Amino acid sequence: MLLVCRAVDEDAVRERIHARVPTPHGTTMCRIGDQLLVHVPGDQLALADEMHESGLLLRAVTDHSGAPLTDREAVPPGSIVELGGSATVGGVDFALIAGPCAVESYEQLSASAAMARAGGAVALRGGAYKPRSSPYSFQGLGDQGLRIMAEVRAETGLPVVTEVVDAATVELVAEHADVLQIGTRNAQNFSLLKAVGQAGRPVLLKRGFGCTVGEWLQAAEYVLAAGNPDVVLCERGIRSFEPATRFTLDLSAVAVVKHLSHLPVIVDPSHGTGHRHLVKPLALAAAAVGADGLLVDIHPEPATALCDGDQALDRDRWFDLATALRDVLASLGRDLTLREPESAGQAR
Amino acid sequence: MLLVCRAVDEDAVRERIHARVPTPHGTTMCRIGDQLLVHVPGDQLALADEMHESGLLLRAVTDHSGAPLTDREAVPPGSIVELGGSATVGGVDFALIAGPCAVESYEQLSASAAMARAGGAVALRGGAYKPRSSPYSFQGLGDQGLRIMAEVRAETGLPVVTEVVDAATVELVAEHADVLQIGTRNAQNFSLLKAVGQAGRPVLLKRGFGCTVGEWLQAAEYVLAAGNPDVVLCERGIRSFEPATRFTLDLSAVAVVKHLSHLPVIVDPSHGTGHRHLVKPLALAAAAVGADGLLVDIHPEPATALCDGDQALDRDRWFDLATALRDVLASLGRDLTLREPESAGQAR
Amino acid sequence: MLLVCRAVDEDAVRERIHARVPTPHGTTMCRIGDQLLVHVPGDQLALADEMHESGLLLRAVTDHSGAPLTDREAVPPGSIVELGGSATVGGVDFALIAGPCAVESYEQLSASAAMARAGGAVALRGGAYKPRSSPYSFQGLGDQGLRIMAEVRAETGLPVVTEVVDAATVELVAEHADVLQIGTRNAQNFSLLKAVGQAGRPVLLKRGFGCTVGEWLQAAEYVLAAGNPDVVLCERGIRSFEPATRFTLDLSAVAVVKHLSHLPVIVDPSHGTGHRHLVKPLALAAAAVGADGLLVDIHPEPATALCDGDQALDRDRWFDLATALRDVLASLGRDLTLREPESAGQAR
Amino acid sequence: MLLVCRAVDEDAVRERIHARVPTPHGTTMCRIGDQLLVHVPGDQLALADEMHESGLLLRAVTDHSGAPLTDREAVPPGSIVELGGSATVGGVDFALIAGPCAVESYEQLSASAAMARAGGAVALRGGAYKPRSSPYSFQGLGDQGLRIMAEVRAETGLPVVTEVVDAATVELVAEHADVLQIGTRNAQNFSLLKAVGQAGRPVLLKRGFGCTVGEWLQAAEYVLAAGNPDVVLCERGIRSFEPATRFTLDLSAVAVVKHLSHLPVIVDPSHGTGHRHLVKPLALAAAAVGADGLLVDIHPEPATALCDGDQALDRDRWFDLATALRDVLASLGRDLTLREPESAGQAR
Repeated sequence: MLLVCRAVDEDAVRERIHARVPTPHGTTMCRIGDQLLVHVPGDQLALADEMHESGLLLRAVTDHSGAPLTDREAVPPGSIVELGGSATVGGVDFALIAGPCAVESYEQLSASAAMARAGGAVALRGGAYKPRSSPYSFQGLGDQGLRIMAEVRAETGLPVVTEVVDAATVELVAEHADVLQIGTRNAQNFSLLKAVGQAGRPVLLKRGFGCTVGEWLQAAEYVLAAGNPDVVLCERGIRSFEPATRFTLDLSAVAVVKHLSHLPVIVDPSHGTGHRHLVKPLALAAAAVGADGLLVDIHPEPATALCDGDQALDRDRWFDLATALRDVLASLGRDLTLREPESAGQAR
Repeated sequence: MLLVCRAVDEDAVRERIHARVPTPHGTTMCRIGDQLLVHVPGDQLALADEMHESGLLLRAVTDHSGAPLTDREAVPPGSIVELGGSATVGGVDFALIAGPCAVESYEQLSASAAMARAGGAVALRGGAYKPRSSPYSFQGLGDQGLRIMAEVRAETGLPVVTEVVDAATVELVAEHADVLQIGTRNAQNFSLLKAVGQAGRPVLLKRGFGCTVGEWLQAAEYVLAAGNPDVVLCERGIRSFEPATRFTLDLSAVAVVKHLSHLPVIVDPSHGTGHRHLVKPLALAAAAVGADGLLVDIHPEPATALCDGDQALDRDRWFDLATALRDVLASLGRDLTLREPESAGQAR
Repeated sequence: MLLVCRAVDEDAVRERIHARVPTPHGTTMCRIGDQLLVHVPGDQLALADEMHESGLLLRAVTDHSGAPLTDREAVPPGSIVELGGSATVGGVDFALIAGPCAVESYEQLSASAAMARAGGAVALRGGAYKPRSSPYSFQGLGDQGLRIMAEVRAETGLPVVTEVVDAATVELVAEHADVLQIGTRNAQNFSLLKAVGQAGRPVLLKRGFGCTVGEWLQAAEYVLAAGNPDVVLCERGIRSFEPATRFTLDLSAVAVVKHLSHLPVIVDPSHGTGHRHLVKPLALAAAAVGADGLLVDIHPEPATALCDGDQALDRDRWFDLATALRDVLASLGRDLTLREPESAGQAR
Repeated sequence: MLLVCRAVDEDAVRERIHARVPTPHGTTMCRIGDQLLVHVPGDQLALADEMHESGLLLRAVTDHSGAPLTDREAVPPGSIVELGGSATVGGVDFALIAGPCAVESYEQLSASAAMARAGGAVALRGGAYKPRSSPYSFQGLGDQGLRIMAEVRAETGLPVVTEVVDAATVELVAEHADVLQIGTRNAQNFSLLKAVGQAGRPVLLKRGFGCTVGEWLQAAEYVLAAGNPDVVLCERGIRSFEPATRFTLDLSAVAVVKHLSHLPVIVDPSHGTGHRHLVKPLALAAAAVGADGLLVDIHPEPATALCDGDQALDRDRWFDLATALRDVLASLGRDLTLREPESAGQAR
């Protein structure tokens, strides 16, 4: 059962819960805005009544989704997540996040950031630690990549999103980056999910390519249950039998998640398709299906990219996408958040 | 190798091919507009040179797609298919096709047709022969359903689209309907594909839910190879491990097909998702990804539907979809074909 | 509800059903051995009581499987299907069926038959009508292929199994062949399933590569509901994301089907894997999981095969498989049906 | 390129490699038995010639598999992995590993160990840290579970296999357990793979349920590349559209892996099917397809199990499986390793 309380009553609520739920195993709490969400195992109607009478309970939700803290009923209007103070995901705004798959050098990231901003992106993505299927593929620049990101962030003011691959480096990454990304291969690495739940940074949680929507929401529940409400979900394609695309982008899942959960959802059409000529149509489709943003691979020189160059957009394709996206979003009554795109001419 | 010729030269071309390709096994021809597409096995460069010199060849395409007649290179601007004389699919126009999953009665179909037209549909769908997984499910009204469709078609002027399930009834269905639909379970029923290739009616070819894009285009190739160029492809979801939706609608496949083939592609968000609340977002996404139209289940009283009622839209949801769709299409520079929607007030 | 009656009482049973089930839509009957299986829609307890009292009912099964005539409860010990009078599938015996994917010539089929028999096969497979994904692939010899099969059958006494691809040719194929195969692409071609349900020949029903076990059993139900109890199911691989094999052979499905249904199940490890070096291990696994037989591609000269040569076994591999199979079957208390393999020496 | 050297020459080989491969990025080494496997990026033919002339090279393999250290060519007869000194996996012996999904108490694990040994198991499995999709499911006893396992191991002499879920606890787990299991959800947790590559214990690497065989072997490559040759692969089912089983056990993958890699492969029919009545047939099939062992869930009282009780075998089913398995293995010329099963009578 989910109990929605006021955040200001947190101490009193905790006291009451501990008094009435004998072994509070399975009890989780998460503060979202000025509300405190509390999940207790089973349906504790007496407890709910008592809390209601003493003014500690705003409302109770008898929940069946298996992921109560992420359930739509917990935050009916949907939650809004801040990225680095200057941007938000969720609500009416649409967040465009762009950057290279991997940080390769200061020059490359700096050029990417300029491109990203010129196209209207509100945050910069870039991988320092790259989880690669093969040990012989480029594994990212590691700490050096983090420092480059921090430098470009300072220069441009763009918040940066980067992947964290193990609990041991969560703290280090959280020092340099604004948003901690959990990649598809760690989507059910529960130790890592608990660690980012305590890191004090928003989390961009990619769907595991072999995971159902239900499992994805339960993965998010691990983060919220550790106290961190700032989770942005990211659909990036699932495994299917179709070989024409690298993965099968499951846009239905976006609509399903918007129905089931209050968390914002963005889409990664770059990893989802694996081919640059498919990124624009799927990006527009993601906007139309109701996604709250996009994560797009861009690169100043895709042909030289050390990682996933086939899916990276060059400057022209990126600006073309950003322009078309504005029109589609406007038709849906949505806006790109904050930042206006510079004209292509200025940007060059 | 694909040879693109003028349709007026058909006799001369046939003669030349027969003279030069000793066993014309694997040679296929299809007339599209004023062009004649000829596929000959292998790369017959001498033949191409000879035909070029004698003015019989417009251009030759060395093709690798495995489905040469449907290949984008055959008709680079994309082909446009007429539906019953009053509507087209492909090109700049966007075709909305709507109706009940199954024809249940004259009253039901007539009411559905009024709803369909009021929302801006250019054609009416409805099943007379229903291929159902279980022999104990409603199998459709059969011939009686065909007669009801013909009656409603006469009254409303809406062309009708209906499924044909075996070669034996192709002729009968072609007498009553404007467009022959091949369902997902018959997507590789090659005898049926050959039969509709000779039926003189446009064909709406659904993707097999277990078929790759390549196999889908090869299925279309069977129809074109039998002489019928009027094929509209329809993405309707594939099988995956995700249980939240009935199938996984593969919108990437639409973008892939638009890249590989000249055939128009529409999307069926109703069967693709199986849940009515998911139809609108996926319909908008289909428009944004570049589909040429939609096939939507609507029903005057979904709760009483004999087939797939969970996914049918009622009047309000259908008008809501049609309105939102117009805005998104306009933002993409596309229009709904021909018919303007009546106002919801008038339509009631 | 499933009513199990005596076959000798068929007329009286029909009369009673028609009297008591007002619209006998959804009522199906199938005679298996000396029993008559009757499915009536819903749970008609009064009817069951009445029939029981008048001695017409052996037992009633309240069924939930969705495919009552194929349900294990209908024939608890499992049914046994005769192939051409000389072999059986089901029960303790294990049926080895082998032959080329496609009939190419008399010489090729005759040599294949000799190989098949020498390895212990009880029936010969071979395709005359080949449903191919591409219209440019070899489509089989058609009628001529049927005549070759009939000739080889007469010479060797081996019953022949061949695919039927449309209702129009069912009668012709039934004249020349002993067992009618429904291929994976026609696994939900319900018109064809109804046609073979009336053809008076046993049916080998392959699983659709995109179909669930439930849908497969419902497809079989179409055949039984048309009056034909002699259905042999054949698992041949499903679509998955794994590219190392052509399909993913679902051996769990064999165990599931043996649990749910009384129909015998065989396995096709050749199409299921697509690679000849994988056929033997998967064939042995199929025997161990409880399959009732195998369908194996063999060819006197695989390198020259017109269809699926990569998966065909040559003589040595085939004999090696047959020998290992005997040992595994013996360890499971099963036997190859009837025919003893000739020694490899004799066979050459 | 893979260079196979003598382990005794390790220092000289390292020196030569460092001298000739300017940036030894992508160079990996692993000692297996008395051989040293060295992978260098690209085809360094001059280096190979030079090493051959100076007697440092046994043979060179130009490799295309993407996972050179695990490639069959590296150890053509197949490698054999020791489990805790008393058992081996690989080669002619077949290793039966059994135990409860989760350690629940000393009593439960002790009873399970007695059952396991009585059925012929050579090692005991049991989870202390359980990665569960939901944060509200039983998460295992953690450190306490490890201590219970160590106690039961001391009493019974059975080596124990347990899962490790993060790098931080690898050392602790390695102190208490003989074999470190990597679960399906961590199959591409590369930080963890590197950590167990340095832990000095054999690793049981489950296939990710969304991973291809190629990715699975590359995951193993991470472990070998970190210096640990003792990897046992475990097929445990992949995601597919089939709902009748929890996952789709991919037994073809076992045959594929035996072909591609020298690593031993075992099968987990319990998690692969999710239903106890399917465990025996799939276990026998796994033996027949060529697996080197099994990982089986058993429980003294499945109805009370805290985790996955539906798939756990009780005593009777477990002994029935063990008996049937012996017969099938004997027919294949294989033996259960070491331990003879006690008679069922004695064991009770």
